[in-house]
Amino acid sequence: MIISTDRAKRPTDFLRDRVQNKGGFCPFCYGNEAKTPPEVLAYRPGQNGGPPAQRDTPGWSVRVVPNKFPALGIEGNLNRQADGMFDKMNGLGAHEVIIETPDHNATLAQLPEKRIEDVMWAFRDRIIDLKKDKRFKYILLFKNHGEIAGASLEHSHSQLIALPILPKQVVEELEGAKQYYIYKERCVFCDIIRQEIDNGIRVVAENDDFLTIAPFAPRFPFETWILPKMHESGFENSSSKMYENLAKAIKTLLTKADLVLDNPAYNMVLHTSPLQDAQNDHYHWHIEFMPKLTKTAGFEWGTGFYINPTPPEEAARFLREANVEMPTVSR
Amino acid sequence: MIISTDRAKRPTDFLRDRVQNKGGFCPFCYGNEAKTPPEVLAYRPGQNGGPPAQRDTPGWSVRVVPNKFPALGIEGNLNRQADGMFDKMNGLGAHEVIIETPDHNATLAQLPEKRIEDVMWAFRDRIIDLKKDKRFKYILLFKNHGEIAGASLEHSHSQLIALPILPKQVVEELEGAKQYYIYKERCVFCDIIRQEIDNGIRVVAENDDFLTIAPFAPRFPFETWILPKMHESGFENSSSKMYENLAKAIKTLLTKADLVLDNPAYNMVLHTSPLQDAQNDHYHWHIEFMPKLTKTAGFEWGTGFYINPTPPEEAARFLREANVEMPTVSR
Repeated sequence: MIISTDRAKRPTDFLRDRVQNKGGFCPFCYGNEAKTPPEVLAYRPGQNGGPPAQRDTPGWSVRVVPNKFPALGIEGNLNRQADGMFDKMNGLGAHEVIIETPDHNATLAQLPEKRIEDVMWAFRDRIIDLKKDKRFKYILLFKNHGEIAGASLEHSHSQLIALPILPKQVVEELEGAKQYYIYKERCVFCDIIRQEIDNGIRVVAENDDFLTIAPFAPRFPFETWILPKMHESGFENSSSKMYENLAKAIKTLLTKADLVLDNPAYNMVLHTSPLQDAQNDHYHWHIEFMPKLTKTAGFEWGTGFYINPTPPEEAARFLREANVEMPTVSR
Repeated sequence: MIISTDRAKRPTDFLRDRVQNKGGFCPFCYGNEAKTPPEVLAYRPGQNGGPPAQRDTPGWSVRVVPNKFPALGIEGNLNRQADGMFDKMNGLGAHEVIIETPDHNATLAQLPEKRIEDVMWAFRDRIIDLKKDKRFKYILLFKNHGEIAGASLEHSHSQLIALPILPKQVVEELEGAKQYYIYKERCVFCDIIRQEIDNGIRVVAENDDFLTIAPFAPRFPFETWILPKMHESGFENSSSKMYENLAKAIKTLLTKADLVLDNPAYNMVLHTSPLQDAQNDHYHWHIEFMPKLTKTAGFEWGTGFYINPTPPEEAARFLREANVEMPTVSR
């Protein structure tokens, strides 16, 4: 990653499309449950003691459904084969949508902390369930917010893709972490957390369980990571208190980003351990938040390097100083 | 790369921003030569026998200038150092702009073949010159066409970046090619060319020296590669006849893409060997053309995999059948 200070940019320098909803028919709104494939999970709060809730009807706060146009299909097996000198396999996998709220116009940032926590529980519950299918090696959870970040529906949602192989990007990150562990017998992310808390210049926010930082070598301006402060390798094995504080950390970061960058489009990706190696000493799950402020172009495609016009220390300062109510840290 | 046929898309399915120029002041037009840093190269045709041309004045057909806002600076050395547990180095390098035509409104596709050939000669001449500086390990030449593909100025131009280290992406591609060579004692690209000419379904166009194909596993819809049919490892060592036929191949591809995809924004990247290893048996230079039709989102950032809604055989057929005058192949 190349930090180009000759091109240094403040938040106001980025040409942006403010994310705004346009409305129209939406398959994720109450009453349109039949327009999606049948739900695989839904939380229906406040119905305890009442009559049992009917599936695929209104009343849910978070609802998970298979993607109607899946990138991968759940049937069959990999069926690896050759095509002349090339290799191919079936597009086996699961592709689900986590509808984060029934409110068409609410963004994840605007939801109450308790509702964001529910989304985190839905992530966890779907991982636990899909993990039973031994064909899957990795589950990727991510969110595209805003059209320029790749969201095709504006109603706030995340996506889950279960994959039969470890993705290239994940293999590289795991291998890097493993090499560091072999050399130092410490988790590289634990070391980063300690160093970043010590010097403070790249810290955006902190609560009892989570540290939010601009990473040392960000690919994108205002790229930000949320990491559990204690070593945790698999997202799905975290404690209840962790999901509660993660929800607070996400709410804090997204609110700050909306303030500083004026409701930017963004991608948010959960990085966690492979399904069959969820408990390990070298990898540390975390969330990467990437507002869509620059365009990936020929240089990036040709090199795999990224030119970033905003030093992480400046990005962190803007986000840190953005005046939102932050949870206090007890240390 | 995942070909998702459930999501199969024809050219008309892509939401597109047709590239159109807006005009206004332009530092790349005749008369504004003083608004760029002084030229490092310019071709001024038709001035043979006349008075010697003055630098940084009109009359050029191709002009190369340092980038006014370089991502990397030419002064100094790498100065590798630690920052706590992290590593950093100076942003050493060269960043130049190849202005492809004095005509503000002409696209590369619209230039006569001879002018496109001049652009290729400028690429070659700049590589040969910068190669003398032993601090540089790799030169990347690329073109961003259209605002959504990252072009910040609309006047047709390419860019050159000389780097003090081999980029990650290049290392991966070289390593893959080297492994294949060790195993088979053949260049993997030569094998691909033979197989693609044999079965024909992914061929877009062909002339005496170049084959244009949709690659077997394209990351992006309508991704297309132009490869020299004979083994050539370093772009800068090609013969005059090669640059002539490369210009024809580029003109053919870009004209077809403009027809089929209605003047798409695109990135075009030259993949060539490292400066200090320009002559080798395992790597094969080529050009990768990537029209900007989809958005890179959370899934791609999280996995390094790409979901492509258009099978390469279909993309190749649309481009192959687009009715433009094509150079004939003598075989």
